[in-house]
Amino acid sequence: MKTDIEIARSINLQEIKQVAKNANIPEDRIENYGRYIAKLPLDLINEEKVKKSNLILVTAITATKAGIGKTTVSIGLALGLQKIGKNAFVALREPSLGPCFGMKGGAAGGGYAQVLPMEKINLHFTGDFHAITSAHNMISALLDNYLYQNQSSGFGLKENLWRRVLDVNDRSLRNIVVGLGAKSNGITQEAGFDITAASEIMAILCLATDEKDLRRRIENILLGYTYDDKPFTVKDLGVAGAITVLLRDAIYPNLVQTTEGSPALVHGGPFANIAHGCNSIVATKMAMSFADYTITEAGFGADLGAEKFYDIKCRKSGLQPKLTVIVATAQGLKMHGGVALDKIKEPNLEGLYHGFANLDKHIRNLRSFGQTVVVAFNRFATDSDEEVDAIKKHCEELGVGFAINNAFTDGGEGAVELAKLVVDTIDKKPSEPLKFAYKEYDTIEEKVEKIATHIYGAKSVQYTNKARKMIKLINSMELSHYPVCIAKTQYSFSADPSAYGAADGFEFEISDFVINNGAEMIIAIAGSMMRMPGLPKSPQALRIDVVNGEIEGLS
Amino acid sequence: MKTDIEIARSINLQEIKQVAKNANIPEDRIENYGRYIAKLPLDLINEEKVKKSNLILVTAITATKAGIGKTTVSIGLALGLQKIGKNAFVALREPSLGPCFGMKGGAAGGGYAQVLPMEKINLHFTGDFHAITSAHNMISALLDNYLYQNQSSGFGLKENLWRRVLDVNDRSLRNIVVGLGAKSNGITQEAGFDITAASEIMAILCLATDEKDLRRRIENILLGYTYDDKPFTVKDLGVAGAITVLLRDAIYPNLVQTTEGSPALVHGGPFANIAHGCNSIVATKMAMSFADYTITEAGFGADLGAEKFYDIKCRKSGLQPKLTVIVATAQGLKMHGGVALDKIKEPNLEGLYHGFANLDKHIRNLRSFGQTVVVAFNRFATDSDEEVDAIKKHCEELGVGFAINNAFTDGGEGAVELAKLVVDTIDKKPSEPLKFAYKEYDTIEEKVEKIATHIYGAKSVQYTNKARKMIKLINSMELSHYPVCIAKTQYSFSADPSAYGAADGFEFEISDFVINNGAEMIIAIAGSMMRMPGLPKSPQALRIDVVNGEIEGLS
Repeated sequence: MKTDIEIARSINLQEIKQVAKNANIPEDRIENYGRYIAKLPLDLINEEKVKKSNLILVTAITATKAGIGKTTVSIGLALGLQKIGKNAFVALREPSLGPCFGMKGGAAGGGYAQVLPMEKINLHFTGDFHAITSAHNMISALLDNYLYQNQSSGFGLKENLWRRVLDVNDRSLRNIVVGLGAKSNGITQEAGFDITAASEIMAILCLATDEKDLRRRIENILLGYTYDDKPFTVKDLGVAGAITVLLRDAIYPNLVQTTEGSPALVHGGPFANIAHGCNSIVATKMAMSFADYTITEAGFGADLGAEKFYDIKCRKSGLQPKLTVIVATAQGLKMHGGVALDKIKEPNLEGLYHGFANLDKHIRNLRSFGQTVVVAFNRFATDSDEEVDAIKKHCEELGVGFAINNAFTDGGEGAVELAKLVVDTIDKKPSEPLKFAYKEYDTIEEKVEKIATHIYGAKSVQYTNKARKMIKLINSMELSHYPVCIAKTQYSFSADPSAYGAADGFEFEISDFVINNGAEMIIAIAGSMMRMPGLPKSPQALRIDVVNGEIEGLS
Repeated sequence: MKTDIEIARSINLQEIKQVAKNANIPEDRIENYGRYIAKLPLDLINEEKVKKSNLILVTAITATKAGIGKTTVSIGLALGLQKIGKNAFVALREPSLGPCFGMKGGAAGGGYAQVLPMEKINLHFTGDFHAITSAHNMISALLDNYLYQNQSSGFGLKENLWRRVLDVNDRSLRNIVVGLGAKSNGITQEAGFDITAASEIMAILCLATDEKDLRRRIENILLGYTYDDKPFTVKDLGVAGAITVLLRDAIYPNLVQTTEGSPALVHGGPFANIAHGCNSIVATKMAMSFADYTITEAGFGADLGAEKFYDIKCRKSGLQPKLTVIVATAQGLKMHGGVALDKIKEPNLEGLYHGFANLDKHIRNLRSFGQTVVVAFNRFATDSDEEVDAIKKHCEELGVGFAINNAFTDGGEGAVELAKLVVDTIDKKPSEPLKFAYKEYDTIEEKVEKIATHIYGAKSVQYTNKARKMIKLINSMELSHYPVCIAKTQYSFSADPSAYGAADGFEFEISDFVINNGAEMIIAIAGSMMRMPGLPKSPQALRIDVVNGEIEGLS
């Protein structure tokens, strides 16, 4: 089979205004970024239509290093729905340059279920992440300058809570000391960079409901505490307007097309491990304004992505998914069943059976939110018929719908079965209204503990002294009503990346909290989770190149 | 009079495809970035037409903090030329976000001589600077990762020469230590950030003649030396392809329009103090491919911008300007004449006469390159007729053409006199072929000394030990044939920002050299020049805002 990028290149792209026209988006309102990408103004969102559109969440079992294919299934499902005559729109997250050049690769789907132009989407795209990086680091520079210029008048922050960001995997920047050398080089202090996807500005962009809300949230960003224990925000720094200006275009969702020429929106942040990892509320609502069926995804396993999608994104926006599709692969299940990574492509029914524990726990969790769940089995060429039958039978026993997705190899045609299952399930048994994992006025500890014990399967939660200190601060600021966004490894239910399957009865440690007062959520850092990834020994950058004028090595 | 941004907003923009069409650029070849900006593919460059186009350089007397108005005159001259029926195209540099939010403000011209849409041009524009920032820091991350992953096998760099960059004024990042904390956070080492305009990638983008040359230069970037004294380049790191991919769109020049709807190109780097500070060769050649008169600018005073334009950009590209226009203001001349900054708006003939020394020295310098020079007097409302007459008379005595530019207030109509002078001078007495300030095979010291003594007026040049060590390295690598790019204050001929007028007979110190092996030039750092600016006490960011949906505070 051709590589993703070969397939992408083989497709005759339609001009984006034609894609818009086909989707009933007024073509004179779109703003082109090249021939095949456009931004859409927010006033195209139609709240009446949003109410009527069927929202479908695509999530997955716990991830393998290669991923489970959630984006591919999300796109495939949209293609399948179109094949059976439905008006469907997929709303995805933007890839980050860090993993593109590091280990994971791009995030524009795969095979014959991609969003295009994949090279642009995987690289700078419309510059949204760059705008976020700029806005974030502009705050850093303005804050450090304020401290530097006002030190003689005795102003200072007891604690500078604002780090910097870059859209690159650079472990060297996690912990740094800035302001060294001459006095004119600023105040010497500890600092550090996170990846742009973990920026509070990214979360704000994804959670803001409109431009006004964007501005309000930027004003509220907490930068630190003064010596007399007063919070110091971006509003206090006097630059909320300037930062809003930097995000003026970034807030508009990006329209692209699928491998079959249908519309797709790609907007907002990945990394459901270290961030809330959902695409933007405005993009989801934009898709819902033009489609009867809107498919969106949440990152990594359902413990991370789906939980945050419901408890943060849906809680804040009022969105109610009609259905949750969980993606499973035979390889992933076998890995969770204890089969060695170099053997998961070989048939192994016993390993597969053992791996069901992971799928089952995710399904129980999703149902606990009141969701109707169907399983999309993302088929690979190496899967045996016996394995597929075993999974199908298992789903029947659980009473969850099951369909095979072959969109990777066959495009929309390969997802017709899944599309029919989805339409039928939404008709007959749509999800109940969301039952969140925790209540708004639970304490921070109760929120963390409900997620950790009910969703992850932990026995109890421990907090480091640093985390306890932060809880006190959060309480004293009266911010404990914010949702909690747990930063945790994507490779396991627990904080231990090697705990495959369905970890159970483990101790769960929270090492720190980060207050996102603009995004209105509290990040809880589990264990030694880093918010700036590193590069592997052989990064993907070694394989990215231009050959005969064409980009190679993106996938 | 209206503010720049009010004027910008009052103009009815043409769709960029119409602007292209008017300029005979095939509209089906342009790639839109929004409605009013497009990128142009490099194969539109026509070398035959390049040879026939009249290239005009606009430079200036030594800068005041407010600038002399070089960009405004450049745009005004293009407008004036069009008014008298000539086919003219202006090719400018892209603004940097750092000064936009810091002290200097934007860089898209002013009044009725602007390039539009000025908000976009001054903010993220087409993302070129972001692509450069990404590419630069991707190399940093990949290099530090290589060192980290291979330390156990004994590989290491004796000296890591590669810093990081951000497009922000952030003094705290000048000198930092990275890789602190756990061992998994990388190798602890000294590091630092420059502003993106000072990135070697920026210089490469501006000096590359095509995509192939871009790739070759990226391969050649020198990152450091191994323990056995071997150079270690981006090619050795194995990521030249990946870095080229990140710059794939950035190398294409950006088409915008002037306040009178005529075409303008804006592409490549500002900061002629800390970089070579010229727009890209490909943009200049693109403009020349479609215009009989091509106007381009070089940053800050002629000692910096024009010298680098001739000795680096023209030497490398073979471009030969037919004329150099030097911009002068009465306020600037009075400042150089010793008038206090708060008094330069008041008539002061004596101060003005004293200030002529600065203009005269620049004119002598420009003539030493074989250039025919005319003076464009950028008139301000506060200038008295007597002052204007005095300057005119002085120019007559020097035998240089003189014209008043009123484009700021009157657009093209205000630059007709200047346009006629320019056309007439090129007809009657075009510049001679360029006589460079130094020869390719002069030693590094000879190059620095020729610029410092002949152009700046220094008595002699001192080198720090660090600089001497670098000279040895440059010689041992056989790189002394590269042009020298001196990083020096823009406020004076010397390295002392307070030495107004025409400094003379001073000691000039070079504190360090930076090898740009990909850009094929050697940066010589004069005195304590920083390549990462800081923010002032009251940064422009405080005044940038969105008011009633419109951006305020950009100029």
